[in-house]
Amino acid sequence: MKKISLTGIKPTGELHIGNYFGAIKPALELTNEYDARYFIADYHGLNTMKDPKELEFTTRHVAAGWLAAGLDPQKVIFYKQSSIPEVFELTVMLLAFTSKGLMNRAHAYKDAVQKNIDKCEDTDAQINMGLFTYPVLMAADIILFDSDVVPVGQDQKQHIEMAQDIAQSVNANYGQQVLKVPQPVIQENVAVVPGLDGRKMSKSYGNVIPLFAPEKTLHKTIKRITTNSQSVEEPKDPDSSQIYQLYKLFADENEQASLANRYREGGMGWGEAKEELFRVVNRRLTPIRERYDIIMSDIPLLEKTLQHGTQKAREIASITIGRFRKIAGVL
Amino acid sequence: MKKISLTGIKPTGELHIGNYFGAIKPALELTNEYDARYFIADYHGLNTMKDPKELEFTTRHVAAGWLAAGLDPQKVIFYKQSSIPEVFELTVMLLAFTSKGLMNRAHAYKDAVQKNIDKCEDTDAQINMGLFTYPVLMAADIILFDSDVVPVGQDQKQHIEMAQDIAQSVNANYGQQVLKVPQPVIQENVAVVPGLDGRKMSKSYGNVIPLFAPEKTLHKTIKRITTNSQSVEEPKDPDSSQIYQLYKLFADENEQASLANRYREGGMGWGEAKEELFRVVNRRLTPIRERYDIIMSDIPLLEKTLQHGTQKAREIASITIGRFRKIAGVL
Repeated sequence: MKKISLTGIKPTGELHIGNYFGAIKPALELTNEYDARYFIADYHGLNTMKDPKELEFTTRHVAAGWLAAGLDPQKVIFYKQSSIPEVFELTVMLLAFTSKGLMNRAHAYKDAVQKNIDKCEDTDAQINMGLFTYPVLMAADIILFDSDVVPVGQDQKQHIEMAQDIAQSVNANYGQQVLKVPQPVIQENVAVVPGLDGRKMSKSYGNVIPLFAPEKTLHKTIKRITTNSQSVEEPKDPDSSQIYQLYKLFADENEQASLANRYREGGMGWGEAKEELFRVVNRRLTPIRERYDIIMSDIPLLEKTLQHGTQKAREIASITIGRFRKIAGVL
Repeated sequence: MKKISLTGIKPTGELHIGNYFGAIKPALELTNEYDARYFIADYHGLNTMKDPKELEFTTRHVAAGWLAAGLDPQKVIFYKQSSIPEVFELTVMLLAFTSKGLMNRAHAYKDAVQKNIDKCEDTDAQINMGLFTYPVLMAADIILFDSDVVPVGQDQKQHIEMAQDIAQSVNANYGQQVLKVPQPVIQENVAVVPGLDGRKMSKSYGNVIPLFAPEKTLHKTIKRITTNSQSVEEPKDPDSSQIYQLYKLFADENEQASLANRYREGGMGWGEAKEELFRVVNRRLTPIRERYDIIMSDIPLLEKTLQHGTQKAREIASITIGRFRKIAGVL
């Protein structure tokens, strides 16, 4: 039997190709090795998104986006956190087994406190309990589904260690394995995608190439990539050009070698390189974009797809919560 | 239409007559004025009760106890917190609208911190997140059922004020009344019941008269009431005698006047006064004890009674949570 992996997807605005190569693609490859499960962490989203239209749109956007990118809801379990009442019940149960000291040490909370200190504000100013208790909700997300592994970046490792701590403290109290203790799998060698300005592609830098932009917008966006002042004639170094870095993500090996040669030979201007990049990006993104548009044009069907995942997820969830309740003496 | 009142019942060990006069009786009288609802806060109990047998027993004990004391599950809504998944979902939603600073100021948390400071321990030593987030769970308990009023003692007033703060912050964010803002009703003139040693009756003092003790145990317990060394002959002051204070709670006016006279005349020893007290206590408690024993002898029926309340409660709960989800943009 395959081990179970769990991937949480936080709804955070428009997906871009940095998300695609840095998160979506590696997460979808988990299905080769694991019984992979995926969920949209919409109640995590509520901590920061207090605008209902934004929360509603981004929830649908990431659901449709991951499906368009290749998530197969017939083969994996795919659901929304907010559809699984057992997640919230388990959260409340786990709170009783989580020491406050553990939460005080959470990186995200400490960072928020440090920002307040730097601004000479109260240490807890503007910090809500959703942020402070986030590691417990995340532990519930993980533990409820008997997850063996949670693939995360280095920055998320602490959250998995906290989930381990909490599960272990439950197991120690009752002298038996009530809850499975999850293991982090640190995702190494995940592609770092350069943005339009050469820095890491990130919404906060305003340098992204959206994943589902219409062809024209995609073209315009790629033409905005910053370049140096080398003339058409000059030979160019592919490795120091973000156009070429992006090209490598989308082109096959022959294409990569061929464009690298044209860089080194000189005679190709940045405009032409961008056109070549647009060609391969658009080739790859067109079917994804078309699937995305189809999915977003039939919201009831999207909801039905998620409901199908919810059913499968709740069957598993009810077993875990039932076991914990029974052992804890909750009637 | 009557206003809605909500009473939470924490499972905390064996009920005694201090609970009966100080909490159960005044709470049951709410039905005269309110559409009264009652629930057993078993997940609050989990914060302190990590022994499953204890949690299971005390949950059943308080359920059977309140029913025996006169709670009519046909007339009021009576349910267990742990049966209402919407409570936990609302808790998670409210966490996103609760400032951490508000929780830092909670009396129960601050008391626990002060105890740690007094013992030169880490400020948060032994404090779990269940305690720290308790006011949010309590706010969810209250708000989910559109409660107008929550009758509480002065010591619980802060929790209601926090529930108000949290509900108001949700309403302010969305610019409409999403959640009803509850009002505290401070219960004044609640009987303070003296214990066997004359101090307030309290489990922590070990001076209680259990509500459902068999007749023989009740008799023995009452004989343990401490008295002074006055002889049989000496006239006695009824008002400074805990025997008489207890007697007043159980006897009618004629009986009260008659025993007060016998105190003042002299010629009645403490033993005789205790027998008279036992007589009236036993008279009042016998039917309650018998109902309690009958209820506890049929646990499936007790569960069914609570399930009946759960159904009614969840009908209300699902409306509130549905309204909040829709307004918040949770799909």
